[in-house]
Amino acid sequence: MPQTFPGIRIEAAELRIVSLPLLTPFVISTGTMTDKVFALLILKAEGLEGLAEAVMDPAPDYLEETIPGAMAFLQDIILPRIVGQRFASPADLLAILDPWRGHRMSKAVVEMAVWDLWSKALGLPLAAALGGVRDAVEVGVSLGIAPIARTLERVSSAQAAGYRRTKLKIRQGHDLTLLAAVRKEFPDIKLTVDANTDYGLVDLPVLRAMDDFALDYIEQPLAFDDIHDHAQVQAAIRTAICLDESIRSAVDARKALVAGAARVINIKVGRVGGFAAARAIHDVAQAFGAPVWCGGMLESGVGRAHNIHLATLPNFTKPGDTSSASRYFKRDIIQQSLEATDGLMPVPGHCPGIGVTLDRPFLDSVTRRTEVIR
Amino acid sequence: MPQTFPGIRIEAAELRIVSLPLLTPFVISTGTMTDKVFALLILKAEGLEGLAEAVMDPAPDYLEETIPGAMAFLQDIILPRIVGQRFASPADLLAILDPWRGHRMSKAVVEMAVWDLWSKALGLPLAAALGGVRDAVEVGVSLGIAPIARTLERVSSAQAAGYRRTKLKIRQGHDLTLLAAVRKEFPDIKLTVDANTDYGLVDLPVLRAMDDFALDYIEQPLAFDDIHDHAQVQAAIRTAICLDESIRSAVDARKALVAGAARVINIKVGRVGGFAAARAIHDVAQAFGAPVWCGGMLESGVGRAHNIHLATLPNFTKPGDTSSASRYFKRDIIQQSLEATDGLMPVPGHCPGIGVTLDRPFLDSVTRRTEVIR
Amino acid sequence: MPQTFPGIRIEAAELRIVSLPLLTPFVISTGTMTDKVFALLILKAEGLEGLAEAVMDPAPDYLEETIPGAMAFLQDIILPRIVGQRFASPADLLAILDPWRGHRMSKAVVEMAVWDLWSKALGLPLAAALGGVRDAVEVGVSLGIAPIARTLERVSSAQAAGYRRTKLKIRQGHDLTLLAAVRKEFPDIKLTVDANTDYGLVDLPVLRAMDDFALDYIEQPLAFDDIHDHAQVQAAIRTAICLDESIRSAVDARKALVAGAARVINIKVGRVGGFAAARAIHDVAQAFGAPVWCGGMLESGVGRAHNIHLATLPNFTKPGDTSSASRYFKRDIIQQSLEATDGLMPVPGHCPGIGVTLDRPFLDSVTRRTEVIR
Amino acid sequence: MPQTFPGIRIEAAELRIVSLPLLTPFVISTGTMTDKVFALLILKAEGLEGLAEAVMDPAPDYLEETIPGAMAFLQDIILPRIVGQRFASPADLLAILDPWRGHRMSKAVVEMAVWDLWSKALGLPLAAALGGVRDAVEVGVSLGIAPIARTLERVSSAQAAGYRRTKLKIRQGHDLTLLAAVRKEFPDIKLTVDANTDYGLVDLPVLRAMDDFALDYIEQPLAFDDIHDHAQVQAAIRTAICLDESIRSAVDARKALVAGAARVINIKVGRVGGFAAARAIHDVAQAFGAPVWCGGMLESGVGRAHNIHLATLPNFTKPGDTSSASRYFKRDIIQQSLEATDGLMPVPGHCPGIGVTLDRPFLDSVTRRTEVIR
Repeated sequence: MPQTFPGIRIEAAELRIVSLPLLTPFVISTGTMTDKVFALLILKAEGLEGLAEAVMDPAPDYLEETIPGAMAFLQDIILPRIVGQRFASPADLLAILDPWRGHRMSKAVVEMAVWDLWSKALGLPLAAALGGVRDAVEVGVSLGIAPIARTLERVSSAQAAGYRRTKLKIRQGHDLTLLAAVRKEFPDIKLTVDANTDYGLVDLPVLRAMDDFALDYIEQPLAFDDIHDHAQVQAAIRTAICLDESIRSAVDARKALVAGAARVINIKVGRVGGFAAARAIHDVAQAFGAPVWCGGMLESGVGRAHNIHLATLPNFTKPGDTSSASRYFKRDIIQQSLEATDGLMPVPGHCPGIGVTLDRPFLDSVTRRTEVIR
Repeated sequence: MPQTFPGIRIEAAELRIVSLPLLTPFVISTGTMTDKVFALLILKAEGLEGLAEAVMDPAPDYLEETIPGAMAFLQDIILPRIVGQRFASPADLLAILDPWRGHRMSKAVVEMAVWDLWSKALGLPLAAALGGVRDAVEVGVSLGIAPIARTLERVSSAQAAGYRRTKLKIRQGHDLTLLAAVRKEFPDIKLTVDANTDYGLVDLPVLRAMDDFALDYIEQPLAFDDIHDHAQVQAAIRTAICLDESIRSAVDARKALVAGAARVINIKVGRVGGFAAARAIHDVAQAFGAPVWCGGMLESGVGRAHNIHLATLPNFTKPGDTSSASRYFKRDIIQQSLEATDGLMPVPGHCPGIGVTLDRPFLDSVTRRTEVIR
Repeated sequence: MPQTFPGIRIEAAELRIVSLPLLTPFVISTGTMTDKVFALLILKAEGLEGLAEAVMDPAPDYLEETIPGAMAFLQDIILPRIVGQRFASPADLLAILDPWRGHRMSKAVVEMAVWDLWSKALGLPLAAALGGVRDAVEVGVSLGIAPIARTLERVSSAQAAGYRRTKLKIRQGHDLTLLAAVRKEFPDIKLTVDANTDYGLVDLPVLRAMDDFALDYIEQPLAFDDIHDHAQVQAAIRTAICLDESIRSAVDARKALVAGAARVINIKVGRVGGFAAARAIHDVAQAFGAPVWCGGMLESGVGRAHNIHLATLPNFTKPGDTSSASRYFKRDIIQQSLEATDGLMPVPGHCPGIGVTLDRPFLDSVTRRTEVIR
Repeated sequence: MPQTFPGIRIEAAELRIVSLPLLTPFVISTGTMTDKVFALLILKAEGLEGLAEAVMDPAPDYLEETIPGAMAFLQDIILPRIVGQRFASPADLLAILDPWRGHRMSKAVVEMAVWDLWSKALGLPLAAALGGVRDAVEVGVSLGIAPIARTLERVSSAQAAGYRRTKLKIRQGHDLTLLAAVRKEFPDIKLTVDANTDYGLVDLPVLRAMDDFALDYIEQPLAFDDIHDHAQVQAAIRTAICLDESIRSAVDARKALVAGAARVINIKVGRVGGFAAARAIHDVAQAFGAPVWCGGMLESGVGRAHNIHLATLPNFTKPGDTSSASRYFKRDIIQQSLEATDGLMPVPGHCPGIGVTLDRPFLDSVTRRTEVIR
């Protein structure tokens, strides 16, 4: 008779703030970002380490959560309730995380680290523990705002590299002309646009004009916390809307799909509260016949590995955003490289769990601060 | 670094037809049933056995699937495609099972046996592998059609035994008077009725009259394959409708909940195609704020154990039907007894997986036929 | 004073499995099909024979029913209840068939054989017994997936042969370009497409784009068991949807037409449970102003004859699928040939009932197995 | 010719964490709360002080924002952008506050302090600066969960004190019996209930049963971030729904009122981001014919004074929650007492702006921490 798995008892939590140099600085509303700053959580149990990366930004410029708010929540409220406890499965976290409002990114980093730890303890690839059905996931590229000529060159490179979908970031005034230029040179590629909440109900004519460009979908045209108005736009245009920030939970997905506010959903596991929430959104979307795909939030290799495992679930039928980390960072914090070939990113399998391991010396060199909860 | 779980390679499948003597014969449309006849599947891999019990009847009197139809499907089509194959997780079955229409009960028995085998190989209780959040599940009783005086005695016994909910089977003409009598003696108990598809749209006045009895829900009043007409009834009555047979998949659940055809769902894992389907229905219902509960199909201890593990998922917030097996069978085919105390059924944990083990000599004595696929 | 018809007492049932060589092998999911395998039922009474052909496949790849499941149901449950009984009309079967769930194809073969027997006993053409209103029925062709150039040739031949409607099988990725090519060469022909459930809600833009090709209808674009989602698509496109598999009964037809899920229905008598069910669907559709037509399931001459008689009912106002059997089989099991001329198929009238007679020696040569119930 | 108001240049910001002893400790999820802990902001300009009090809790148990998250946001991001700047009016803050997601409570405390400062600089009562139309506002009481007999006594006292509306906190299982008891003794009083998000769609029968008690409204029955499901409930019950947490902005108010999710709105200026947002919600509700009222979040005298000024706007036609501070705190941080007489709370007018002044020595004694930004 097989032995019963005794659960995992979390012995310590190490919460780091990491500052990882970017290849190309980003200009954002608060200045120029030369490093990606993020919280990394390492849970320790019985010689194993569960890893996860948090996706909140230092300031609330994309979503409400911030690194300082998250640090307080994790250090003072959540991690002390987890360290020293034994977990039969990640579902045991529900009772600890559920009572608190919001803080989905903070909850996610804990839940994801427990999934990694648990699947490692079981010797399972995270994909197998989640119910995944593929060894590699299709990925596309996301091209930022740039002059049109430069964008055309980049589309061309992405096609040459085999990426399965090209996403163009758009904003008001940098939309229809760009699309006309890209479609003229690339009439048949799988093309999408990401509006990053830059439009309003008043921009319906512009959104409707996008119907002429055979887009696979228009991502998040309206406000980050809206479902209702997207339903009005979706009813008026032929192109599918894909919601990203607007969908924080399976309940949101249900409301959006009942309302006809979208036909595609972008699931970011680190944003929606972890794998249980991500899988529930996936299941609801599948029940509505709405495909999903896995977005990215400029994660290092740890978060990137989590995303790839998530994208093995059956309804992730559209190419995701997890392209090669080497496109963004000078050096990654993991020992393995995550590189897509011909638009396919293999599920990392160097070890159980997320399948990648930390490059400790380099991680130490880019860690700004470390908190340990025992 | 932990070892990677190599998956499980299924070496053989043993498909038995079991005929288990009932304590009290049932009268059904084809005669008197003195034995529960069912298919039992035993998958073998590396010294372990994955067990599951199929819920189709010999004849198509409850649903379309029958034991003979299932045996052909399993022996000729499914099991030969599974034996000899290696599975990283139960999700790998999808590609084998999905192409075939219907046959959900046959698919379920295979998928459930693989979940048992896989969780045993990992040393996990099935509940932990599924994402369950409790050690014991609330159960109620289901009382068949009987004279009213006899039913009152049985409600009284069930209350004394601590069952958490009393379900009365009703049929046309044996409904309102029964309810009035039960509510007079037991004004405050949690009471539901199961109409087993015996009503039609024309019976709306009777169904509406049930609003006076503070029922927790009315189960499956209309046709076994209907959603549309239930929506009309639900719009006209205050009491919640619970759908059972009508919900075969997460897609059905979505349609029913969008249409307002029900506010509660009864999930039977052996009927909906297995745990992946059951969990997806659970997730969709949860996204709609609709509680679910775990029904039963007169399973032996093997199916009963599967049901209990399923009912540990978070949204199983209403008492289920998995009462003690000793109420139905002279002797069970498992070595452990599954007995509820004060309306709580503990999750069986004698071993990993479903947590119960076969009583081989007794099983052999009640097996009518055995097919082995290697 | 005329004598009262005494009914027919069924003396024996002969259930054969026939394997009829195809002219051109079909590639299906389980391999290459070189023979059409089907069950043939011969009911005997007072020197007459009632014939019918069952339409289930060996494996559940089109619908749930299978030949092995049907054989068990017919041999063990239905035929023993029929042989030895006297029937005043086919309606007497209802009490025997109705209690069982599903198994519509099995029920149909029994009911249709009784109709044939009964109308023979009465000396009536089946069409007259059913209430038919015409001597010949309009038929079209159905063209399978093929390279576009080959399809254009076949459309041209079908036009030359006078077929009244051309149906193109489509699937994802083989749709709009095909339609554009066909419409370019044949701008004015009556054209339909059969999607065979290959699309989902997510494909709404493709389905909407079909509005440009003046199709008479799009047949069964979404899942085989769906009504709800077709209603969403129908609301969003101009072209009529025709439902096939989704409509199993008059109740389904009513739900679909109330919901606006279709504007045309394809009735297959062998799939919906027999003539009583087929006629009821016909009546409901007529009440909603929705025309119907008669589909086919690659029947031999026996099933084909049944279909032609059915299609004489008044609301069969669109051309059906019953083209000449010689297009599919090397040799048929009946003595008469069923050939359309200028798109019109005459109602066979060699004898009462279905109007055709068996070619016994050839039938014996292609019979694999025979069960006789007396 | 009159001089142009030069605007106010903010010279310094003083951000305090205050811990104010409660008369009666509250039991909350994280333990027993004996003190109300809150952030107090004092903006200094030209010898004046603008005061405001922030309403976030230490932990995210009511809404997502927390004191630690807010402190980081205010100290690091917002206040450095404000100190040293000159503001022609509070509207100048928009460009600074708007780009950041969420953090409405933090934004509110800044915006409200600027309103106070600005109206003080102008010599205006805040009510006049806002557009208020009355000198005193109607108030009611809110009675927490207690045994029914105790609640009856408290309703009796509130009636004796002249409060204009009685609000009963309810929760599942403590609802209908309570209402029946209260209505039996007080058949004609203006009665409302506050469900504090404790119900779900599944509880529709209970919510519908509340129609029997002639409630003025049911406050926030469903989830704190829901509009969509409230619309379903509102469509099914006669009693008006009042939304509180669900309405964070004028856009939310518009969506809720278009969807029919509520007929009354509870506006909390400290929760919705400040006076500009609160007034916009007020205006939208008025345009929909939906009355509003002013809720409370257990504020000290500073927040209470802000609330009273807000409630002078025309569409605040239902009694608010701003009852006397002496009911909650042993001692207040302001020098004036805010006491209602016969259900009417006078607008404080000791000075311009919010009309109350700090009790400095006492404030210092209950201040835990002070940050000064210059």
